[in-house]
Amino acid sequence: MKNLYTLIMAGGSGTRFWPRSKTAKPKQYLNIFGNESLLQDTIKRFATFTENEKIYIVSSATQATVLEEQTPMLPKENLIYEPVGRNTLPCIGLAAMFAEKENPDGIMVVSPSDHLIENNELFKDTVLAAAKIADEKDGIVTIGITPNYPATGYGYVQTAENITGAEKISQFKVERFVEKPNEATASDYLKQGGFYWNSGLFVFKVSVFLKAVQEFAPELYADLRKIQADLGNPSYPQTLDTIYRAVESISVDYGIMEHAKNIYLVEGNFDWNDLGSWESVYLADKNKDENGNAGSGETMFLDTKNSYVYSEDDNVVAVVGLDDVIVVKDGNTTLVCKRENAEDIKKIVEQLKAENKAQFL
Amino acid sequence: MKNLYTLIMAGGSGTRFWPRSKTAKPKQYLNIFGNESLLQDTIKRFATFTENEKIYIVSSATQATVLEEQTPMLPKENLIYEPVGRNTLPCIGLAAMFAEKENPDGIMVVSPSDHLIENNELFKDTVLAAAKIADEKDGIVTIGITPNYPATGYGYVQTAENITGAEKISQFKVERFVEKPNEATASDYLKQGGFYWNSGLFVFKVSVFLKAVQEFAPELYADLRKIQADLGNPSYPQTLDTIYRAVESISVDYGIMEHAKNIYLVEGNFDWNDLGSWESVYLADKNKDENGNAGSGETMFLDTKNSYVYSEDDNVVAVVGLDDVIVVKDGNTTLVCKRENAEDIKKIVEQLKAENKAQFL
Repeated sequence: MKNLYTLIMAGGSGTRFWPRSKTAKPKQYLNIFGNESLLQDTIKRFATFTENEKIYIVSSATQATVLEEQTPMLPKENLIYEPVGRNTLPCIGLAAMFAEKENPDGIMVVSPSDHLIENNELFKDTVLAAAKIADEKDGIVTIGITPNYPATGYGYVQTAENITGAEKISQFKVERFVEKPNEATASDYLKQGGFYWNSGLFVFKVSVFLKAVQEFAPELYADLRKIQADLGNPSYPQTLDTIYRAVESISVDYGIMEHAKNIYLVEGNFDWNDLGSWESVYLADKNKDENGNAGSGETMFLDTKNSYVYSEDDNVVAVVGLDDVIVVKDGNTTLVCKRENAEDIKKIVEQLKAENKAQFL
Repeated sequence: MKNLYTLIMAGGSGTRFWPRSKTAKPKQYLNIFGNESLLQDTIKRFATFTENEKIYIVSSATQATVLEEQTPMLPKENLIYEPVGRNTLPCIGLAAMFAEKENPDGIMVVSPSDHLIENNELFKDTVLAAAKIADEKDGIVTIGITPNYPATGYGYVQTAENITGAEKISQFKVERFVEKPNEATASDYLKQGGFYWNSGLFVFKVSVFLKAVQEFAPELYADLRKIQADLGNPSYPQTLDTIYRAVESISVDYGIMEHAKNIYLVEGNFDWNDLGSWESVYLADKNKDENGNAGSGETMFLDTKNSYVYSEDDNVVAVVGLDDVIVVKDGNTTLVCKRENAEDIKKIVEQLKAENKAQFL
């Protein structure tokens, strides 16, 4: 598709992946499976149907070194650095301002940088189906993942009218976006049907998206226009810094998707895992041994079941007599965690931050 | 005491202390508690009542570097290297041959190098009481630890006639030495009374011990005499190597103590811990936090109880949601072990050996 732009959001800090995820090299830059990073996998996935010149990445200045190192295939000017993180709406808005200068009628796919997606062919077909709707109906299209269990870790999208025609991939009008539910509510959603996981994948025409920003977040819109007006000038970095720091931190879901009317959903049936925690990595790992143990590097398991161990090159990690644990050894930091407590890793990171222990972060 | 010699046996490999205990630096050279190694603590303990010139250490040639590094206070000629380990009887016999050349009437205290002993004053009084018996009765004296639970990890010594006179420290004739019992037998021993843990601390007159070797291990005795005859000659290292490699591997308990008649026991009431495993270290650690966690270095415990963590300098180890675990991070090796499986660590070491992974051993 000629006028297709991709925006990969790579500014996250991935604290639940500590200790591998560090300030200077968060989750998206790690090779969790295979030899390439999640970001590189993401770029590759889009590069099969998007020109490299039309792939943008928004990230944080603190990640510039690793980002440039991992993206030699992209033009440097496509790497956009936020002075500070302000959640997804300002981030996407900023990138849309870049794209608008090239082509206001361009179709932009917004994608997280740190998800695991298999079936790249089906992924491509799904994105292109979404792009077609975005183009033809001037809608904002989200890709919804067909849920296979009542997850409480994802937001959901409830669909309305089924508008699938001759297409192989189902498409719907969207009724509403809902935040992460509790387990009972999630079970209800699955029983009721018509609910999808919010994948964070959005597709829209640049002009349509910016119009929605203008309508639902007018202050942000004005600020983004000021930034855009200074693009290419020597004063631009200072302008960006001053204005962007002052914008409200708000998600695209909350700021736009929950309000706009022209929202569509395309069903995503490709293998998808947001790798939200080490627990997700354990579950997604397809190379488990006969005791359900998985991991990376040189590992030894003795009387140990259903555990995940990450060991660095030239290291060994041995686990003895434990079930359901996650062990991650990375440089000067080691984590040992019960699988069910994987979400609590961010508390460790918070504590280290509070204690100013930057050497471990 | 003027004619008192100390022999510290420091040739052990301490595989149950992996991964801190490595081939080139086994357990006795580690600072488990405090700043000095267990060996250095042992030397200090004896140095308060033994001249440094009379403290011998038997170790293995593979440990020469770390041994010399840690023993600047001792004459180099007091460091005796076995070409190979042959258990305690050949080791003590070899050292006795050295001591005999200086003073056959000297009293020798044999001590492990890797035990934790507190109350140094009481320890000294106990050793001196044993030395007095060894000297006056020409007996071989063992120091028996008063058991406070039915341990299955130690050998026991059953006492016979109580021969305590005016002394403050109880002393007995010995009935027999028994190997590590099972739990039921150990419980019986405690109920029955008169049983002590075999501490590995022995005291004897050099000539008396060598006479016992001659009587109960005549082949070894002849071999040791040949080695002694070559002491100081250029051919000595070769002689030692050739003969020592061929001697039978046998413990002093099995080779002498279970057979000799003139055996005595002096009661040891000082705090004693053989630090047989990481579990012993956990139990012996007196600096536990309110959740029963202990350790060394920078550690973080979240929803974790009764665990022991060793973290190296400039490292952090975080444990989340686990109880009763041992975590030891040492260089390129990391161990995570349920406390009750602490004895199985040696299986990990065996496996690494079998796989020729010397870089982790």
